Amino acid sequence: MPKLDLTRIERRTGSTYPGKLRATMDGRSSLRLGDAGGLTQFGVNMVRLEPGGMSSLRHYHLEQDEFAMAIEGTLVLVDDDCEHEMRPGDCATFPAGDPNGHHLINRTDAPAAFLVVGTRTPTETAYYSDIDMMVKTDTDGSRFTCKDGSPLTADQIGDDNE
Amino acid sequence: MPKLDLTRIERRTGSTYPGKLRATMDGRSSLRLGDAGGLTQFGVNMVRLEPGGMSSLRHYHLEQDEFAMAIEGTLVLVDDDCEHEMRPGDCATFPAGDPNGHHLINRTDAPAAFLVVGTRTPTETAYYSDIDMMVKTDTDGSRFTCKDGSPLTADQIGDDNE
Repeated sequence: MPKLDLTRIERRTGSTYPGKLRATMDGRSSLRLGDAGGLTQFGVNMVRLEPGGMSSLRHYHLEQDEFAMAIEGTLVLVDDDCEHEMRPGDCATFPAGDPNGHHLINRTDAPAAFLVVGTRTPTETAYYSDIDMMVKTDTDGSRFTCKDGSPLTADQIGDDNE
Repeated sequence: MPKLDLTRIERRTGSTYPGKLRATMDGRSSLRLGDAGGLTQFGVNMVRLEPGGMSSLRHYHLEQDEFAMAIEGTLVLVDDDCEHEMRPGDCATFPAGDPNGHHLINRTDAPAAFLVVGTRTPTETAYYSDIDMMVKTDTDGSRFTCKDGSPLTADQIGDDNE
């Protein structure tokens, strides 16, 4: 049946970020709507941010288009230029390769939510705008490094087993 | 700026359907959000259906994933199996190649709206479930024919210049 029963989709938490950076995503959870409905060409996630939560560290993608629509509450979209308030129905686009790092944050006292769509590609590279980190993804998984390819340091991520 | 100003995006009407089939889309208009924001890998449209309007003739895609979320009003999703009421926040997925013809219709007295996302591919074939029609799309454009590839008849589409 094409209509999704959102109450039956697992709410996922956690992060693939290394070491102590993982905790920056503690206020985020999401429903993987596209995966639940059998889509493979793009991901569609309904992301919930608790007060103080953020969608990701500020970043941009080299290969993947991204689209977001605010659904609930009030969010702030932060990019290289400024901040934009995002209320339900407000939309934003992030074309692949545009080096304008972005993320959404919830500065209110109530939960907020947004829908996000991103292309699935065999490989991907993303750069983090506010820290010296990049991630390369391929069929072997994701590897986080400094932007020159060198390993992340303990200063950056602490004990990676934490 | 990644945030879109929806008031500055042209509302598009009309249809690429041939001949008299074109009028079936009279109650539909849309904002091409993805195009307006520079996305190329998938389309994102905010579609408005007036009372009695429909999203498309009932169809399925061979190559392109599709996702829809109801945004305003009450819609009915019709597929091969049954009908599903779609209220704001309800979502549906249509994986490429799944031969379950679908469309959204507005049977209420008020406008309704939904967000739809579809992959962009160099070629595409779609089949229409309730009539003997298919469409093949490539870099030369879209060609509507009967499902066996023969030309559509005057009975099906009337005078194609109408």
